[in-house]
Amino acid sequence: MNTSHLKKLAQVGIALSAEKDINKLLELIVDEARNLTAADGGTLYIVDAERAHLRFEILQNDTMEMRLGGTTGREISLPPVPLRAFGHPNHANVSSYVALTEQIVNVPDLYEAEGFDFIGPRTYDASTGYRSKSMLVIPMKDHEDEVIGVLQLLNARDPATSDIIPFDPESVDLIASLASQAAVALTNRVLFENLAEAKRCTEQAHLDTIQRLAIVAAYRDKDTSMHIKRMSCYSAVLARGFDLPPQEVEIILRASPMHDVGKIGIPDAILLKPAKLNSEEWLIMKQHTTIGGHMLSGSQSELIQAGKTIALSHHERWDGSGYPAGLAGEEIPLWGRVCAVADVFDALTHKRPYRQAMSNQEAFKLLEEGRGKQFDPRMVDVFFSQLDEIAAIQDPRSEKVYRACCV
Amino acid sequence: MNTSHLKKLAQVGIALSAEKDINKLLELIVDEARNLTAADGGTLYIVDAERAHLRFEILQNDTMEMRLGGTTGREISLPPVPLRAFGHPNHANVSSYVALTEQIVNVPDLYEAEGFDFIGPRTYDASTGYRSKSMLVIPMKDHEDEVIGVLQLLNARDPATSDIIPFDPESVDLIASLASQAAVALTNRVLFENLAEAKRCTEQAHLDTIQRLAIVAAYRDKDTSMHIKRMSCYSAVLARGFDLPPQEVEIILRASPMHDVGKIGIPDAILLKPAKLNSEEWLIMKQHTTIGGHMLSGSQSELIQAGKTIALSHHERWDGSGYPAGLAGEEIPLWGRVCAVADVFDALTHKRPYRQAMSNQEAFKLLEEGRGKQFDPRMVDVFFSQLDEIAAIQDPRSEKVYRACCV
Repeated sequence: MNTSHLKKLAQVGIALSAEKDINKLLELIVDEARNLTAADGGTLYIVDAERAHLRFEILQNDTMEMRLGGTTGREISLPPVPLRAFGHPNHANVSSYVALTEQIVNVPDLYEAEGFDFIGPRTYDASTGYRSKSMLVIPMKDHEDEVIGVLQLLNARDPATSDIIPFDPESVDLIASLASQAAVALTNRVLFENLAEAKRCTEQAHLDTIQRLAIVAAYRDKDTSMHIKRMSCYSAVLARGFDLPPQEVEIILRASPMHDVGKIGIPDAILLKPAKLNSEEWLIMKQHTTIGGHMLSGSQSELIQAGKTIALSHHERWDGSGYPAGLAGEEIPLWGRVCAVADVFDALTHKRPYRQAMSNQEAFKLLEEGRGKQFDPRMVDVFFSQLDEIAAIQDPRSEKVYRACCV
Repeated sequence: MNTSHLKKLAQVGIALSAEKDINKLLELIVDEARNLTAADGGTLYIVDAERAHLRFEILQNDTMEMRLGGTTGREISLPPVPLRAFGHPNHANVSSYVALTEQIVNVPDLYEAEGFDFIGPRTYDASTGYRSKSMLVIPMKDHEDEVIGVLQLLNARDPATSDIIPFDPESVDLIASLASQAAVALTNRVLFENLAEAKRCTEQAHLDTIQRLAIVAAYRDKDTSMHIKRMSCYSAVLARGFDLPPQEVEIILRASPMHDVGKIGIPDAILLKPAKLNSEEWLIMKQHTTIGGHMLSGSQSELIQAGKTIALSHHERWDGSGYPAGLAGEEIPLWGRVCAVADVFDALTHKRPYRQAMSNQEAFKLLEEGRGKQFDPRMVDVFFSQLDEIAAIQDPRSEKVYRACCV
């Protein structure tokens, strides 16, 4: 091997390790392998999960102006190559042989070689007039010495004359080293992607379970899950209108459904009473905030922690006359001030056991009256600045709005 | 660069990419860099998260028989090196200079060099009699061209005579290439570890939320969270005794707490009635299984799906006389048969609104009588084969048993 090739190899190794996109990585492997050997064509196969087939990933041929697979968006329509042991009928595919035996195959001219059928390139030649000649086929072994794919290079060219020549032994060493680097880089990347995907699934399961916790809690007081969806969407709209950063809007959207979890601890006789509560009942009813805080305390989940904050603060009032702590103004956590407006607006505009639903106009009037008394005055202003979005969420026909807002 | 060095470099690149343990990787970087340059000593620094300091990670010196950091378990007690811009007082640390300017520094003899203070090696020499002489200091830049660390090699040796010589320019290129490979490998590894840690946190949050869902549901019928813990621990003991694989034991442990989630949908007047239910009330009470199934349906979480199965099947009976579906024998999901025994045993041995707690002996008698009628006969046999473990979970003093079982 000459030094310039080896230096190039070191650079390629770094580039392969650094590539984050698997399709780009696959392409880069073939590009660089062809580059180092001046090969006209190149194919990359990956062993499938069942280790039963070699799947085509990249197919390139300069003369035929062909680039398929990888980032090109052009799929390779060829069927996968079965991995068949030697001795089996149809065993004579060279890539299958290389994957199974872990041997390198270097053929000066595939029309004169024996032992392999070379049906693929011969069929291709017959239909296109191309002339496949020299071929180098190398297994890609990862750090656990497992063959994860096969790299196949076609028609090495003389750098000076561009004549098709056999792959020289120096190229073989070089490409073998590249193939190892490529296999390790690819395995690392696949492991990373799999881990990232597993994390996304767990996150989704966590979000689903939080949503479920909220819906389960709402089951008893005949609140529908629609109330929870609307209320959390209003909260997100207000948070966005208040210029909270997107991550915080997301937290409010996900955590606000838990605001009434503590109602589980309130007896039916009070929770479902079809009339106004007397003062003793009212004292018990108010405890849903602290019961909710208790139910949601001690979690390491950021969302459950936010749920606790909201459960504890969504009935505080700007003027300090709310419950359970009687906090006033900026003492009330911002997320609680957001959810207070969202929760009251949705409650007012829907039927309750002891009263009918209000019209939007009546509800707007009450919000306006509560400005600076019950509610953070700026939050009420934000509400009135977002009436289009509020109306879209409110529209019972627009299920898709919830999805757009809540996903 | 000579070919053998370059070939070695390619192999090292693969080894670095393949190393999964960060401490081993850090050590490998210094080992291989010293190997390629026959350096007597080597130091690896990593830029800290605030980009304010270089932290010592690896410190090696063959002559002094010193190997610190990495996998050795021997910590490096030296304070981190502040990253100070040139011109600042105490700016003259060579590693800090290299990290900030991204320049390579190659010093033939650090006692004759100008511009840097070399306080570290000089102090070391003064106290030990060692003689620090040639030094090569190289920035480690990752694929985003960010310096993530500094590699410092000390006292190159002539391979023939072992005399201390300057680092030759060929070594500089070689180590620069190695440092790039090392930086990319290290960054990849750190990203992977961070992702794995984030996944673990999300998993923990998910488990916590499921537990919370179960505890919240139990809140109303004054079941304590202790009932849920005991019942799920009994279930895990039975599943293990039934020779289910560990993953399935884990699923049962995590999912069984949700078995009575549907009780949230049962009115207080029935759920909390301090007497036996009449037949009409009993019909409603039985609905807690299907309500639970409904509450837990449609999730992509494996654990919530298992919770649904258990909620729906833990009141089925082996002889087909159970509810809600009247399944018999093997038709009843195995997890439901596990939880049926666990749930009944814990219910019998604890007080209920309408009766006192039974003694273990009385409860054992009822389980025995239910063998092949209410319960899977093999499950009852497993129960009686695990009485030590059952007793350990039951012992109110042994909080730690729950932890041992439930974590």
